[in-house]
Order: sequence, then structure tokens, then C-alpha cells
Amino acid sequence: MNFASDTTAPAHPDVLEAMAAANHGNAASYGADSVTDALKAHLAETFETNDFDIWLCASGTASNALALSIMCSSIGAIACHQEAHIERDERGAPEFFTGGAKLRLLPGFAAQIDETALRGALAANDPSFVHETPLETLSLTNLTECGTAYSVDTVRHFAALAKAGGLNVHLDGARLANALISTGALPAEMTWKAGIDVLTFGLTKTGAIGCEIIVLFGQMRAHMEALKARAKRSGHMPPKMRYLAAQGQAMLREDL
Amino acid sequence: MNFASDTTAPAHPDVLEAMAAANHGNAASYGADSVTDALKAHLAETFETNDFDIWLCASGTASNALALSIMCSSIGAIACHQEAHIERDERGAPEFFTGGAKLRLLPGFAAQIDETALRGALAANDPSFVHETPLETLSLTNLTECGTAYSVDTVRHFAALAKAGGLNVHLDGARLANALISTGALPAEMTWKAGIDVLTFGLTKTGAIGCEIIVLFGQMRAHMEALKARAKRSGHMPPKMRYLAAQGQAMLREDL
Amino acid sequence: MNFASDTTAPAHPDVLEAMAAANHGNAASYGADSVTDALKAHLAETFETNDFDIWLCASGTASNALALSIMCSSIGAIACHQEAHIERDERGAPEFFTGGAKLRLLPGFAAQIDETALRGALAANDPSFVHETPLETLSLTNLTECGTAYSVDTVRHFAALAKAGGLNVHLDGARLANALISTGALPAEMTWKAGIDVLTFGLTKTGAIGCEIIVLFGQMRAHMEALKARAKRSGHMPPKMRYLAAQGQAMLREDL
Amino acid sequence: MNFASDTTAPAHPDVLEAMAAANHGNAASYGADSVTDALKAHLAETFETNDFDIWLCASGTASNALALSIMCSSIGAIACHQEAHIERDERGAPEFFTGGAKLRLLPGFAAQIDETALRGALAANDPSFVHETPLETLSLTNLTECGTAYSVDTVRHFAALAKAGGLNVHLDGARLANALISTGALPAEMTWKAGIDVLTFGLTKTGAIGCEIIVLFGQMRAHMEALKARAKRSGHMPPKMRYLAAQGQAMLREDL
Repeated sequence: MNFASDTTAPAHPDVLEAMAAANHGNAASYGADSVTDALKAHLAETFETNDFDIWLCASGTASNALALSIMCSSIGAIACHQEAHIERDERGAPEFFTGGAKLRLLPGFAAQIDETALRGALAANDPSFVHETPLETLSLTNLTECGTAYSVDTVRHFAALAKAGGLNVHLDGARLANALISTGALPAEMTWKAGIDVLTFGLTKTGAIGCEIIVLFGQMRAHMEALKARAKRSGHMPPKMRYLAAQGQAMLREDL
Repeated sequence: MNFASDTTAPAHPDVLEAMAAANHGNAASYGADSVTDALKAHLAETFETNDFDIWLCASGTASNALALSIMCSSIGAIACHQEAHIERDERGAPEFFTGGAKLRLLPGFAAQIDETALRGALAANDPSFVHETPLETLSLTNLTECGTAYSVDTVRHFAALAKAGGLNVHLDGARLANALISTGALPAEMTWKAGIDVLTFGLTKTGAIGCEIIVLFGQMRAHMEALKARAKRSGHMPPKMRYLAAQGQAMLREDL
Repeated sequence: MNFASDTTAPAHPDVLEAMAAANHGNAASYGADSVTDALKAHLAETFETNDFDIWLCASGTASNALALSIMCSSIGAIACHQEAHIERDERGAPEFFTGGAKLRLLPGFAAQIDETALRGALAANDPSFVHETPLETLSLTNLTECGTAYSVDTVRHFAALAKAGGLNVHLDGARLANALISTGALPAEMTWKAGIDVLTFGLTKTGAIGCEIIVLFGQMRAHMEALKARAKRSGHMPPKMRYLAAQGQAMLREDL
Repeated sequence: MNFASDTTAPAHPDVLEAMAAANHGNAASYGADSVTDALKAHLAETFETNDFDIWLCASGTASNALALSIMCSSIGAIACHQEAHIERDERGAPEFFTGGAKLRLLPGFAAQIDETALRGALAANDPSFVHETPLETLSLTNLTECGTAYSVDTVRHFAALAKAGGLNVHLDGARLANALISTGALPAEMTWKAGIDVLTFGLTKTGAIGCEIIVLFGQMRAHMEALKARAKRSGHMPPKMRYLAAQGQAMLREDL
């Protein structure tokens, strides 16, 4: 797959039309507007639930790092594949946003975490041993960085292993739409029903100008205020969020 | 002045037209595109110099914090007015981006730093005394947070005092256009000719969807690679930067 | 008072004797030794309670910063006097250990916080307003940096105001022994009975080689594991803690 | 080797005697005392050079992390063995002190970095590629965490490879004395003559109460003021440094 080209292509025409449509009259700042409300309603249908909350930002690196910063403390670690985008292509953003958490890199074919390696890391994890940094989060990517897809069964299985070990589970969905097409799974099946706590859902690589959605499912909604504060202080609280939401709406109509 | 309304207003129609105009054909990612080049040429005219470099981002908080993060180390301090936006309205972004630098708050009428207070802070500054955090940067805001304008003479005078004390000088120009109108000064006079090292030039509050320009003048250009790296890891390296540049172009034609 | 001389004076002879007495046989590392147990028993008597936990470190700056790092999040603020040691003499340690929290500086005569200023800061504090950094902690110093003493009544009153506003309360007790002598108060009265959640109790300035005790009272004991982890990663988990505890024991016999 | 026991053993009797000997009369604080001067003179003989500067602290974790914090920026990476103490046993201290730098883990038998892996990492290193975190530092451990010794030739060779790639080189010498005995090398040969820029030299595990020496060789002396500032703000600037220096002196007489 030629991912490099994703960011050189122009935006989908619907995206700019939707932004223009959002461009009339005054609107509440910072996401309290009707365009953002409409996007949230659309997502409720897509994910077959109302038990979620969202935040929008224009950067995939930021959406992953913000999500991880409310999932893993500065004194914890995040397990991920050794070729994960969060390890290889984000210039240390997870370390920066978490305040110094560590990434624990796991091997596996075609950018999919090897189950034995995951079980080994979980078995060795001892939060009470103060000298080593304990795992707090498992981060999966689907489509993976190699363009392969985890099945819903594997996501559910890995999430269950992680949760049995006290970890929460993040899904980097920069190319979630492709993963759903590739596996034939529904959005809900691949995410919260499989045990995903936080999804970062990317639309930039599939046609938006810049629109990434952080979705907090279920109990993670309790961290929404902390997420907002962290978004604010990292410069990811767009005053005119309606233009991001308009992109999201346009892309969702296309994608899913 | 009713600043609250700045972010509730729709974008200027030219902004969306310019974005649509930028939306054809593939383009190099991350700012190496012709729209960004054209913006830079426009700024060269505006600021009457070619001795500068720029970075674009969509957030005023981020542009200030990124600028400060290449001006002040994690073990230094930034002098600013006690009502400065960087102190009051950015949820600790400067501390976050610098890795823990301190803000040294100075008093003064109508959000303008009092000269005696500035002189006192500079006189007491001793970088060799390891127990206190030494000043490395002076940050001015023009228009100030109260809507008053520093004159060119005052900016030049304060910058000279700061430089004599070994500090570099930042100008928060979230409303620079208004300051230029209010004082009748030219952009070059109010910035690099007056001793400003880094300008954060805001267009969002005057009509863009989200477009802030960080301008590194003269010797600060040496920090351009560090700025890019910090932009990348904070999620402020928009892959499709041309849409930001298009907004900048449209607003500059209106503003200056 | 000539505080400068505190750190140039030799240690009290009892301190070195106690260290020598601790120097026989093997002992459990990292505080699980009999000397540390004995110190804790001594402190239980001193503070008239068993509802506390302790951590020892050799640096006053570290003990304050570690304490604050479990009291205030990276996106919160700490109210303190504008001449507080944590603001003026610790080279940004609180910002570093908390991951970028802010200090909110309050005025007041003789390094004691002015009640009106404290009430004003608390009244203006709105954790739900995401753009400003909300207060999470009040830090008092007794003896203050000017050598004056807060009375037990004032400490209790200020702590009650802070708690009514949702803050927890830290006491920098680098010279607590002097404050107790000066006011005639008992250790328990000046600390947990007055609403202090975490005390940093210094013995270095009164005669130890380097011994500071962080005391977590009551509900703050829940943060003991986080404190240990933060101590470990900041290099304040002395493997041979018994030598610190021996100093503490010797000084407590002298001091209180 | 039973390293666990290192920190349970009592201190060498000479250490406490030396501390007692340092315990008379007033002395300048923070290392400007005669005991520290004498230690420096002793080290000049040991390392056959005067072109170095030192800092003392009581923690091996802190000495490594402080050293690395002046060698690698917050936006850079440190190459080390995957079983290195800085990766496995310091609870994220390097990430904390550097402000979020990454560790790049290299494989190799018996905790020694594999040369092919090192060459591969260096060949792939491209500081101009902003998306990945570039290597700035190579960290070696001698004795390694497995108790094996790198020869002087290997240290010199690996340091030369690293420097050809623009990296500086750190040696974690928590058990340097054992490495020297094991290889028959002289201290100078194993360190600055082999290309080591910064050595963290541990005496705690061989008999001190807590004494680690950070040695900046040659051009790294330019970072001494930054090191002091970082030591101050992390609580590793012992006011009564003479007691650390006395331990160092006593151990050096024994060890080398």
C-alpha cells in the first residue's frame, strides 16, 4: 500500500462543501455547536451505542497521544507492536503527552502482535515491583502499519488478555475504515464490543483535510474533562470545532 | 472589546474560497507545496525581509507554546505580564511544551508590563545562581490582553533592555493586525526591526478557520529544525499544510 | 535568621554515631529494615497517630517536589506564597516533578499568605473552566521563608478554606521544629489535626547530613505506591535507607 | 553474581570513618569544600587527566539519568542494550530527566550490544527525517547487567562507530571497578581514551552508603552548569556534599 500518498492527495470535494455549509452565522465555540452535535448523533448510529464521548483534532499523532495520555500515567508503560505508528512515526509524542511513559515493544509478523509475546509481557508484569515500569495499556493498530487486518476475534481475545492483566485497551484506527472493509466487521464489533476502551478514528488519510476523532467508550467517559484539559494545553482545542465536525460528517457519509 | 465573539463568528468567505482553490491535484506534504511557498513570498513583502522562516499551525495556544519551547529551556524562565494569555488562558501550555520552564509574572497597567518591574527583574537575574530559575525570554503581547497597544518605541526599548540582559524576545501577535492599525506602524517596524526574535502571528481571531504563523527572524532560523521536530511530536505538523497556507494567504490579503 | 549557615555547619555528632550503629550486618534494602521501622514508631509517638506513612529522602527540594507530585496533577496548580521556597529556591522542581503544574503566587506580609488573597484565589477557582489551570493544592511553609510562624489556628483556618474549595494541603516543614518551639504547639496539632494532608519534615537544616521525611497522613496513604514509584524514577529511593533513618532517629531524639 | 545483595550489605568501615573525619568545622556548601577538592585530585590521578569535571549524587538511577539529560535532548533517542539498567530497572528515569527522550533497544548476547545491530541502527539514523526520533547518544554498561565485561577494544570500537554517526557516548559504570579488574584495563583506557564522553561511576554497590560520581570528560565540561541546574531541580544537589565526597575518597582508596 502506498500510504505516503495519503497526505499528498487533495481532500474529497464533499469535505470542502461541508465546511462551506458550516460557515454561516455565529456558533458556540469549542464543540458546543450543532455541527458537532450532528456528528455525534451520526457516530451513535455507526457504533450502535450512546455510551461514548468524543473529541476532535486535526492530527493523527495528537489524537493517539492525547488518547494514551488519559489511559497511561507518566509512571506506566504501553505495550504495542515494535513497528507501531506510535513508536516509529510520532517523534516521541506518546512520551511527551504522557509525561514520560514508556512503550514496551512486542514482536510479531506483519505488524501484528504475537500472542506468545503478549502473554509473556503480561505474565511478567508486576505493578507492585517499583523498579520496573508496569504496563497500564495495550495499543493495537487496525489496519496495522503493514496494511494487514486483525480479525474481530483476535482484537477481542487480545483485549480480554490485557484486561485480565489490569490493562486498558487502545485502538489506533487511522485506517479503521479499511480494516472494517477488509474483515467485513461492523464498527461496534471491532471496537467497544471487542473490549476497546478508546478508539482514535482517522479520517485524514482517507480524504479529510484534517479530522481525527477520539472516541471514549463506556467507563472511559469519566476521563472526558481530563482529555479536554490536555487538549487545551497541547493546542488541540480548536475554537471553531464546527469545521472539523463538518469534515467528519462528510467523510462518515462516504466511508461507512 | 468583545474577544469572546472572535471564535464564534464564521470564517471570512475568502478563506473557504482559498481552501477550495488549494484543493486540486496532489501536492507535497508537510509544507513543501506551492501554496505555502506563495504565503512565504507574501510574508517577505509584508515584513520587508527574506531573513525569516515560518511554521503554520491551527492553534494560537500551540503557536505560542511551540515558539517559547525553542526560545526557553526547561530550566529557564519567561518574563511576561501577569495577565498574559500564555499565563492565564493556555492551561499551562508553555510549561508543557518547554518541559517545565517557569513564567515570571510582571505587573503593569492595562496589561502592559511596567518598565520599573521589568528593569527590576532583569537586574535581579543571575544565571550563575543555580538555585533560582534564570530568565531566558521576554514575552510581550500586542495588542495586549486588555486591548491596548504598545507603541513601536516601547517594544524596541523593552526588547533592548531584555537583550542587554541576555534574553531573547517573543511577540504574541494574536491581534497584531489590530496593533498595527492602532499605532500606524508597519509590520517590520513592530517586529524584527524592534528586536523581536520570534513572532506568533494570529489570523484565527480575525477571520480564519484556524491559522497561526510562527515567524522566526534572523538568527532564530537556526532553530527551525528543532521547531519542526517539536511541532511533529505535539501534533502540529499538518500533513496537508496547504489548507492552512491558503487561509493565511486569504487573510493577509484582507488584513494588512 | 542566618539560614545560609544551616548547610555549612557540621552534622550533629549523634547523627554519625547513629549511622555507625546502623552499620552492622545485612539489612533489607529500600526501607524494609528495622532502623526505618524504629523511626516510624518514633514518629507515631511524635504525631500521636498510626494513620500515616513515610518516605525518606536526602534533599529538601526533592521531598517537597515529590510530595507535590502526588498532590497536584500535571494539569493543575498549587497556591503558595510568592516568596515560598518551592517558587524561589528550587529551580523549578515542582514543575518538573509534577510534569508541568503551575504555581499560583499569593502575596502577604512576612512570607505569610494574606487571607484575602487566598479567599480571592479560591473564589475565582473554577475547575470546569478548561482554559485556566485550576488550583488543586495549597502549600504553606512553617516557619515561613521569613522566619515567622503561622499559628495553629491560622494553619487550621487556611486548610479549612482550601478544603472547602476542593484543594488538599501541603506543609513545607523544613523548619517545623522551630515553628513548634515558636508557637508552643504539639506536632499533631500543627499538622494532621489542623488539616495538613502531607508534611515534608526537614532535619537537614537542623543538624542531619541529609534527611527529610515525607509524611502522608490519613487518606493520602492511598498514594504511597505512586510516591514510591516517583521516588524511584527520580533517584530518591536510597537502597540503603537505613542510614537515612538512623539520621532521622538521632535528630528526633534531639529536636522534639 | 548476586547483585541483590549489594544493597543489603553494610557499608565499608572506612566509609563511615571518612564521613566522621569530614565532620568538623564549617565548610562551604554544595561541593565547594576541601573534601570534594581532594576527591577531584584523587580522580585526576586515577583517570590520568585534568580535563574533566565531576558531580556527586547518592543514587545510581539519578546519576545515569542526570548524565543522559545533558547528552540527549527531549526530542532525541538513546541507543542501549535491551537489558540495560537504564531501560529495565530505573522506572523511566531517563525519559523523566530528559523530558521524554526515547530509548532505542538493541539486542546482543550476555547484555552486550551486538555489533551488527548497532551498525544497523546507526545506518538507519537520519536526524533530518522529522517523523522518527534520531539517536543522539549511545549508552554502554561495563560490567554489563549480566556481569560480563566489554574489552577496551570493543568500547573504543563502538564509541568510534557512534561518533562517526554524530552520537556522544555514555558509560554506565555502576560496576566499573569490576570491569577494570576483569579486563586488566586502566581507568583512563576504559573511559575517555576509548571515546567515553560521560561516565557514571558507582561506588554504592561496592561499599559506599550512597555515592555515585558523574564524570564529564573533555568537551562535555561545557555542560557542567546545565548539569548543576538539573541536579538542583531534581533534588540531587546535596548541600553537605562533603559527606558524599568523603565516601568517594574512602572507596577509591579501596577500589582502584
